[in-house]
Amino acid sequence: MRGLSRSLIALIASVLLSPTSAFAQADPLPSWNNGPTKEAIVSFVEKVTEEGGADYVPPQDRIATFDNDGNLWAEKPVYFQLLFAIDRVKALAPQHPEWKDKQPFKAVLEGDMEALAKSGHEGIAELVMATHAGMSTDEFQQIVSDWLATAVHPRFKRKYTDLVYQPMLELLAYLRDNGFTTYIVSGGGIEFVRNFSEPVYGIPPAQVVGSSIKTKYELVDGKPTLLRLAEMNFIDDKEGKPVGISQHIGERPLFASGNSDGDYQMLDWTTAGEGPRFGLIVHHTDADREYAYDRDSSVGRLDKALDAAADKGWVVVDMKNDWNQVFPLNN
Amino acid sequence: MRGLSRSLIALIASVLLSPTSAFAQADPLPSWNNGPTKEAIVSFVEKVTEEGGADYVPPQDRIATFDNDGNLWAEKPVYFQLLFAIDRVKALAPQHPEWKDKQPFKAVLEGDMEALAKSGHEGIAELVMATHAGMSTDEFQQIVSDWLATAVHPRFKRKYTDLVYQPMLELLAYLRDNGFTTYIVSGGGIEFVRNFSEPVYGIPPAQVVGSSIKTKYELVDGKPTLLRLAEMNFIDDKEGKPVGISQHIGERPLFASGNSDGDYQMLDWTTAGEGPRFGLIVHHTDADREYAYDRDSSVGRLDKALDAAADKGWVVVDMKNDWNQVFPLNN
Repeated sequence: MRGLSRSLIALIASVLLSPTSAFAQADPLPSWNNGPTKEAIVSFVEKVTEEGGADYVPPQDRIATFDNDGNLWAEKPVYFQLLFAIDRVKALAPQHPEWKDKQPFKAVLEGDMEALAKSGHEGIAELVMATHAGMSTDEFQQIVSDWLATAVHPRFKRKYTDLVYQPMLELLAYLRDNGFTTYIVSGGGIEFVRNFSEPVYGIPPAQVVGSSIKTKYELVDGKPTLLRLAEMNFIDDKEGKPVGISQHIGERPLFASGNSDGDYQMLDWTTAGEGPRFGLIVHHTDADREYAYDRDSSVGRLDKALDAAADKGWVVVDMKNDWNQVFPLNN
Repeated sequence: MRGLSRSLIALIASVLLSPTSAFAQADPLPSWNNGPTKEAIVSFVEKVTEEGGADYVPPQDRIATFDNDGNLWAEKPVYFQLLFAIDRVKALAPQHPEWKDKQPFKAVLEGDMEALAKSGHEGIAELVMATHAGMSTDEFQQIVSDWLATAVHPRFKRKYTDLVYQPMLELLAYLRDNGFTTYIVSGGGIEFVRNFSEPVYGIPPAQVVGSSIKTKYELVDGKPTLLRLAEMNFIDDKEGKPVGISQHIGERPLFASGNSDGDYQMLDWTTAGEGPRFGLIVHHTDADREYAYDRDSSVGRLDKALDAAADKGWVVVDMKNDWNQVFPLNN
């Protein structure tokens, strides 16, 4: 018995301590089909983490940036944050009788998506300001939490935070397990994304970069308060992404992932850096399990970046063929 | 012999594994004299890290923010970044013959500090723009590196990065060893501070919050480049500090440390949070080893925050009596 228990202990120790154990060798990306895309990712990570190797990058420089909409979670029929704004307009309408006759609010209240689209960028900006400003940062977090806990996607009938891509969750964890720091760099609102980034993606609030409105510090009834103002602070899209990364992170990423032309500059800036770099594009090719769209889509248009991918060496994920699972199983 | 070697192994194991070992009990703050200030810090850290304790705070919420000038390194005779700007004006003067007759440049070139002071905030802002903008972020980092490697403090005849406070280096390490994430929240320029924050303080670029000018993303000869523009982006001082913390970190700190009225709002916002919080003020009381100044100083004025400390429960460091060493030993 003693002998047996000793070998058991030795076995346990070898499993726990050996870097080449059965546990360590389990596939870290099970939702990715074997093939060139998965191989490219794994071989890049092995290359930059191989101590003594020619392409070794120390952990503090292993910065990975991920777009959010259409890259970590879905973005159809429209950006989920816009659906949040629409729901907020409906909820706040009783306090704003004037909205019945005023665009773009009228369009929202009448469910007239064509009229809403016609209101353009200015109309959307007006919706965002009316629903995202005029409260403290704490109050806004509560409003977003409440919405995310109850709102349901029109097609999939699941909570929005369930419509994250399982393969990308695995990729985030795989990179972190290999010493990377993972960031979100989103065109969406920084405080909106921060609301769920840690529980859903394992990315803490400080590692979220996004668009923002201005905030103002003020004593309210003697209590220090941060108030959200109806004034744009920063747009974290296109040329704004490298600027936002520079402001928040202060370093060029080693790895960047996006899915639309809004990510072109982030990908270009990342992969133009010296030494090994990696650019990843998620191409939505799966109308059955998710959506199929690229050049002609108004939400998440992928055109210029798709054309540039081959030349720039960016790896394009074919969602239909590269992913054997899209969303996490129902939980 | 076998018996001896076994007890040796047991001894080593007990030293390495026991949380109450001789190693773990070594004083983590040797440059702090024993007394109420040090006791307050240690008892706070023990309280928030005691698992199962009433005041336990999970590691992800252990955010500590530190002002830089006068709090982590010295700030006399004037902010070191202003001395950098002055040296840059002198270096760039041959390319700017017009500066000979134009304030505030004339004052700098003639060493007329009184005229420079008279030029006020606008004058200083003009100096900063002329010396901090008009190049890429990479070029700016090189300029700052070169300056920090060679410039010497007028009184101490040491490099500026040697004029950091040894007790604060110990405090940063002590907090990190206890699961805190340490941030700099400086009125100084974010890219200036990022240049040395990691090697000097162990704080990576992404954990630096500071004032900034705008940057613009552009292709220069086809190469993605971030250009520094002569336009203010954000002033991370006074009311700006909680705003900057909210933008970058997205959470209220658990612990904040400053040394001037510019830190009042950061301290107030921090300690107004629910549960245990800690506010620390470094009071410069040591003219022999460093400097003695507070209410009447134009650089690092400490007046309103000093008056409020008792009421707010902020702990005031008496540099002369609380620190047995100010700067690291010559290295």
